[in-house]
Amino acid sequence: MLENLDKKVAKDKAHMLVVALGGNALQESGGPATSEAQHAVVTKTCEYLAEIVSRGYEIAVVHGNGPQVGRIVLASEAAKAVTPAMPFDVCGAMSQGYIGYHIQQCLKYALKKRNMAIPVVTIVTQMVVSKDDPGFKNPTKPIGPFYTKEEADKIALETGYTMKEDSGRGYRRVVASPIPEKIVEIDAVKKLWDTTIVITAGGGGIPVIEKEDGELVGVPAVIDKDFAAELLAENLEADTLMILTEVEKIAINFNKPNQKNLDKMTVAEAEDYVKEGHFAPGSMLPKVLAAIKFAKANPGKKAIITSLYNAVEALEGKTGTVIINK
Amino acid sequence: MLENLDKKVAKDKAHMLVVALGGNALQESGGPATSEAQHAVVTKTCEYLAEIVSRGYEIAVVHGNGPQVGRIVLASEAAKAVTPAMPFDVCGAMSQGYIGYHIQQCLKYALKKRNMAIPVVTIVTQMVVSKDDPGFKNPTKPIGPFYTKEEADKIALETGYTMKEDSGRGYRRVVASPIPEKIVEIDAVKKLWDTTIVITAGGGGIPVIEKEDGELVGVPAVIDKDFAAELLAENLEADTLMILTEVEKIAINFNKPNQKNLDKMTVAEAEDYVKEGHFAPGSMLPKVLAAIKFAKANPGKKAIITSLYNAVEALEGKTGTVIINK
Repeated sequence: MLENLDKKVAKDKAHMLVVALGGNALQESGGPATSEAQHAVVTKTCEYLAEIVSRGYEIAVVHGNGPQVGRIVLASEAAKAVTPAMPFDVCGAMSQGYIGYHIQQCLKYALKKRNMAIPVVTIVTQMVVSKDDPGFKNPTKPIGPFYTKEEADKIALETGYTMKEDSGRGYRRVVASPIPEKIVEIDAVKKLWDTTIVITAGGGGIPVIEKEDGELVGVPAVIDKDFAAELLAENLEADTLMILTEVEKIAINFNKPNQKNLDKMTVAEAEDYVKEGHFAPGSMLPKVLAAIKFAKANPGKKAIITSLYNAVEALEGKTGTVIINK
Repeated sequence: MLENLDKKVAKDKAHMLVVALGGNALQESGGPATSEAQHAVVTKTCEYLAEIVSRGYEIAVVHGNGPQVGRIVLASEAAKAVTPAMPFDVCGAMSQGYIGYHIQQCLKYALKKRNMAIPVVTIVTQMVVSKDDPGFKNPTKPIGPFYTKEEADKIALETGYTMKEDSGRGYRRVVASPIPEKIVEIDAVKKLWDTTIVITAGGGGIPVIEKEDGELVGVPAVIDKDFAAELLAENLEADTLMILTEVEKIAINFNKPNQKNLDKMTVAEAEDYVKEGHFAPGSMLPKVLAAIKFAKANPGKKAIITSLYNAVEALEGKTGTVIINK
C-alpha cells in the first residue's frame, strides 16, 4: 500500500481532474430506487472512473444527489408520526454519507482489480452560500412530497415554507439554488488530493451561511453540483473540469432536424449559444455555465462535457465537447 | 488559516488523543430527538472538545450513533410504502453524515471562538469485521421498530432476519456486534491527523466484510464505538485513549452501599473487576474492555474513562479513571 502511495506522490506532474457525476451515474433513471440498485449502478460507474485513474489521472469526485435526497426527505416526512422529520441540510448530509459510502466502496474495489491500492474517501462537505444570494428571494427548486393546494397552504402558514405548483402534479416545497462561494473543508481536500481520491461536495455540498462571527448555519437550499465541481476545480488548480452527463457531446438545436453536435466551444461561442437559448435550464444549462466559468478563469485549461461511457476517449481528445477560453 | 496550520504542524511533539463520544454527548437522554435538539447538545459538547484542543492536544473523534441510526431505521421502515427501506449499513452511513456534519460544524465554531482556525472534517468510514466473528452466529443488538410475535415471525420468514423478544416491549430485529478489525480509510486519517481534527469511525464504522479478492460488502451489524476508538488509537499510535461517558469515574460495586470510585486501575486489576462482574454489559463493560486492550498493547500509555465535563481535568490527572498496563 505504502509503495503505491509513494508512487502516487512522486507523480506530481500528473494531470489533475475534477469529475462531476450526474444522477444517471448513480441511479438508473426510472429503475428501482433501492440501495441495492444504486450499488449496482455505482459499481459500473466506478469501472469507468478506475479506468480514468489507470491512465494516470489524479481525480476528485463531486456527485449529484437529487433523487437520493428527495427520497430521504420523502421517508423523513412520511415517518414523522413516529420520529421527527429532519431538516433539509441534514437530509443532504445523510445523502453524502449514503452516496459517498457506495462510491468509495465500489471505486476502491474497481481500483484494486487494476492493482491500484489508492485510498478513496468521502469527506462530509459544507458549502458556504451568501445569505444575500438572489436565489433566496425567489426559490425555484422543488423538494419532497406533493401536496394538495389546501395542504400546501396549511404547511406554508405553519412553517413559512414557500410552496409552488409543480408540473400539474400538485404543490411542493421549493427552496433556493444559490451560487456556491466557499468549500468549508477545502484544506483537508487539498491535503489529501495528491495521494487519495476524495469524494467531496456531494449534492453540491451542504448549504450553510456564514455569520459575521464565523458561525456556520445550515440552510434549506440546493446547490448545483456542476457549480460546486467548478469551484472545487478552481480551488485545487485542477487541469481539467470534466462534467459527465447522459450525452456524448453537447448539441445546439437539440432534438431538432438541424441538431449539431459540438466538438469544441470557445467561451465566447458558448456564451452566444447560451444567449440563443440552446441549453435547457436545470439540465444542460448549468453544465455549460460551469464549464464557461472554469474555462474563462483558467486560460490554457479546459472543461469537458461528455458521458461517463466516453470519458476516457474524451480525455484523449477523441470525443466529448471541450470548452476552452479561446 | 495557513499560519495556524503551520503552527499545528510544527507542534509535532503534541499529545495525541483519541476521544470516544457517547450518546449523551450528542443527544439529551429522554429529550426531543429532533435535529435541532441534537445540534444544541453537540454545540455544548464541542465547547468541551475545543477546550481540550486549546490545551495543546491533537484529537481525533469517534462517536456513537445508537439513537440516531435507530431513528433512521424507524423512518426508513415506516416510510417503506412510499420509498424503499434502506439496508442497515446504509443507515449507518447516513448517520455518519448526519452526526459528523453537526460535530464538524459546531467544533469548527467552538475553535474559532478560541482563535484556532483548525480544519475539522468527517470521513465516511468503513470498518472491516470478520465474517467468522462469533457475533454473527449469536446476534444480540436490537435495532429498529418493535413488532408483535406474529409480525416478527412473518418478517423472519420473509427476510431471514433474527427476531428476538426485547425487554417485554415486543419483538425486534437483532444483529451481530462483531469486533472491529481494520479501518478501511485509515490512510487518509493518518494523512490528516497532524493538521486536521478528523471525525471518523462514527457509530463504530460501517461494518463490511472483506472478500478474498478484496471486495468490501456491507453487513448488518453494530460495531461498538469504544472498540472502534481503541483500534483507531492503536493505528494512530495515540498517546491516550479517552472514553467519555456519563460518570466522572468508574466504580466497583456500582449503586451499592459499598460503591467505590476508582482513580486508577492496572490492566490486571481491571481484568479482575471484569471477572467479578462489576461492569454492566452494553454499558460500562465495553468501555473497560476497550481501555484494557489499549493499555495492554501500549505500555507507558494510558486510557482514561470519565465524563465530557471532566475531560480537561482528567487529562491534567485531577479526576477520571486511568487504566494503565501496570
